Amino acid sequence: MGRFDTISFLSDYGRADEFVGVVHSVVRQLAPEVRVIDLTHEIPAHDVRAGGLALARSAQYLAPGVVLAVVDPGVGSARRAVAVEVGGGSSYLVGPDNGLLAPAVAMVGGATRAVELTELDYQLPAPGPTFAGRDVFGPAAAHLCNGVDLLELGPELDVHGLTPGLLPVAREEGDALIAEVLWTDGFGNLQLNVGPDEIEALGDRVELRFDGRIRTGVRHRTYAEVPTGVVGLVVDSYGLVSLAFDRASAAEELGIGTGDEVVLGPIVDDAEPSGVVTPVVLKEKP
Amino acid sequence: MGRFDTISFLSDYGRADEFVGVVHSVVRQLAPEVRVIDLTHEIPAHDVRAGGLALARSAQYLAPGVVLAVVDPGVGSARRAVAVEVGGGSSYLVGPDNGLLAPAVAMVGGATRAVELTELDYQLPAPGPTFAGRDVFGPAAAHLCNGVDLLELGPELDVHGLTPGLLPVAREEGDALIAEVLWTDGFGNLQLNVGPDEIEALGDRVELRFDGRIRTGVRHRTYAEVPTGVVGLVVDSYGLVSLAFDRASAAEELGIGTGDEVVLGPIVDDAEPSGVVTPVVLKEKP
Amino acid sequence: MGRFDTISFLSDYGRADEFVGVVHSVVRQLAPEVRVIDLTHEIPAHDVRAGGLALARSAQYLAPGVVLAVVDPGVGSARRAVAVEVGGGSSYLVGPDNGLLAPAVAMVGGATRAVELTELDYQLPAPGPTFAGRDVFGPAAAHLCNGVDLLELGPELDVHGLTPGLLPVAREEGDALIAEVLWTDGFGNLQLNVGPDEIEALGDRVELRFDGRIRTGVRHRTYAEVPTGVVGLVVDSYGLVSLAFDRASAAEELGIGTGDEVVLGPIVDDAEPSGVVTPVVLKEKP
Repeated sequence: MGRFDTISFLSDYGRADEFVGVVHSVVRQLAPEVRVIDLTHEIPAHDVRAGGLALARSAQYLAPGVVLAVVDPGVGSARRAVAVEVGGGSSYLVGPDNGLLAPAVAMVGGATRAVELTELDYQLPAPGPTFAGRDVFGPAAAHLCNGVDLLELGPELDVHGLTPGLLPVAREEGDALIAEVLWTDGFGNLQLNVGPDEIEALGDRVELRFDGRIRTGVRHRTYAEVPTGVVGLVVDSYGLVSLAFDRASAAEELGIGTGDEVVLGPIVDDAEPSGVVTPVVLKEKP
Repeated sequence: MGRFDTISFLSDYGRADEFVGVVHSVVRQLAPEVRVIDLTHEIPAHDVRAGGLALARSAQYLAPGVVLAVVDPGVGSARRAVAVEVGGGSSYLVGPDNGLLAPAVAMVGGATRAVELTELDYQLPAPGPTFAGRDVFGPAAAHLCNGVDLLELGPELDVHGLTPGLLPVAREEGDALIAEVLWTDGFGNLQLNVGPDEIEALGDRVELRFDGRIRTGVRHRTYAEVPTGVVGLVVDSYGLVSLAFDRASAAEELGIGTGDEVVLGPIVDDAEPSGVVTPVVLKEKP
Repeated sequence: MGRFDTISFLSDYGRADEFVGVVHSVVRQLAPEVRVIDLTHEIPAHDVRAGGLALARSAQYLAPGVVLAVVDPGVGSARRAVAVEVGGGSSYLVGPDNGLLAPAVAMVGGATRAVELTELDYQLPAPGPTFAGRDVFGPAAAHLCNGVDLLELGPELDVHGLTPGLLPVAREEGDALIAEVLWTDGFGNLQLNVGPDEIEALGDRVELRFDGRIRTGVRHRTYAEVPTGVVGLVVDSYGLVSLAFDRASAAEELGIGTGDEVVLGPIVDDAEPSGVVTPVVLKEKP
């Protein structure tokens, strides 16, 4: 047995093509005992930030081993292909050095070593330079599982020179909190970059301002407890505050999504009856 | 080796997010030898009936072991999380007690024991109560594979108190059979809640009434034998009668889908030429 | 251990239904040690050519073992179910004899033996004839992995009688090359049936005619090197010339897709400034 027996694999390859399966096939041949776990391959094409956040959300739940992550709009160009060691060798992350790996690396305590993947002996000969998952990253992940030393894969890099991931931080402004939707999940729940303690002082009812509109958000423990039509504020499974409706998509109901700003503040005029959706349309009076 | 080495996993998580991969990762760490087989994760969000039917269709083909099923609109609320034993321990089903498991449990002979999953020692500590697949159900499935006794996971439940699954049964009305579309598969074939023997007496040509329209369905053995434009009545791979077109979607051609009523009866006026689609438009005469 | 421990599985089943998972379950029970690698299951429904091309692209990267491929509009009808031996037994391909397997078989040197899958002892009893992946092909693949002799699965066929796959070949016409889009990948890159040597003589800038329009394609090594708005000609990861934009979908930008004709020729009037998209609209002068 090698050093690790699990690779956790995330990409923006989608599943319509055979890309993911071919990477599995390559790993299968280089490291037959390794299990490849697909985190998701439906990161929006080229969306490095979305991929980085998905990795960060997953990080603490992954089996020890190698994370193989490919969201790589600069494939084949000057961006570096890297392998990053964390925890002094307790796990490795392999992918492009474009900020994709950074949030997950930070989550698990930071990089202890890193190399640029240049050593051709540990890559596949490539008919073209555009499928690094198959030719560069997948093989590197497999070889690391097999016990190949990190430094054999290429020259060591200064870990402080790795591309950082930039995550938006909510900021206070007066008694309000300027937040942002980090992630819209498949059910339409809107995760904010806000922890529950940050809105503790606002109480159970919070004014939400977004897209020129005002709504009242009401804190609830679970989705199912949110009354129909009410915007729930639910602490999600990653410990962050999310906007959620019961059995409905908050993204669709509110018309906002990832990257949009949401301002949370104290209720000023609590005129909106809870449980009733009140669409407000501003019109010129005749 | 533990008691079982296979978990069959179905959910409405979709694959756009990392939910499915994280559950795989959790199982991988608790029960490294277990193989997790993904049945599907594209059950429409919160559609307990669709999930229950997919499980029931699969049940007889699954490897012995644990079925892990999560379609769970009430996650974190009063609905119970359960593990259900079938065949005196030949397999287990783990999921919410909301009717999702019931059709599959019935298919394999009914529950012999059941517990509510409350024992925190067999769960993950959860930052929020909304991802029971990761924190409650996945771990329970892994522990059951490892050989943990069912009764260690929580208090025993009366199996007769489990939430039943309600499946529509076709009913006779005169010489007609009032049926319903149980399932629209990815090719657009429309599975009815009707066995081939139930329409034996109607012969090879059957009158179909749905959505205010009348069409003639013609029995054929395979999709490819259905002439172009004809509504085929084909016994599908689960032994039920389905409405099907050759290389075309019956759902699109007929404009109906899951849950819609279809009345099957004897041909009265067989005026419709087989092989020709006759769209009938009722208009007020001028 | 059996003869092989890997099945590479491709189909048009999609993942919305439980079809793929059920085939995995069937294989799991017949050949528990075998790993099933999903290449893709999102081949467009009934698109035998698209499935055949995806298999051919994958072929050289697959682990030795059995390829299980199901794009099968004629399921249950007169089309034959076959297992094809390649390399004198180094691998097998199992699927319908409708041209799906042919390109991959050709890629790896041609068939050495073939049988028709008729022997019921190696199939599952089927409630209906429409799910051959579960009842016929999946079991055959599992049994071949286990070491069952090819000739036990059914009568031997003349390998020259297998249905060929018809792939379009680019043809020269004067100094132009009449090509075709073979494949639109998930990023919108358009793979042509053209190798880089075939356009060597045209130089770095090539006139592209398609859909009544003329554009200039510029050769670049990677997607990221293609200037914004320019149609790049990039040798893709399979060694074929593709039309590509940087971080944008060539299929969307150019409005063409799989099967469309593209004529490549020498630049005649290089009036189009590179880097600028010039939509040309022909209008009647007033």
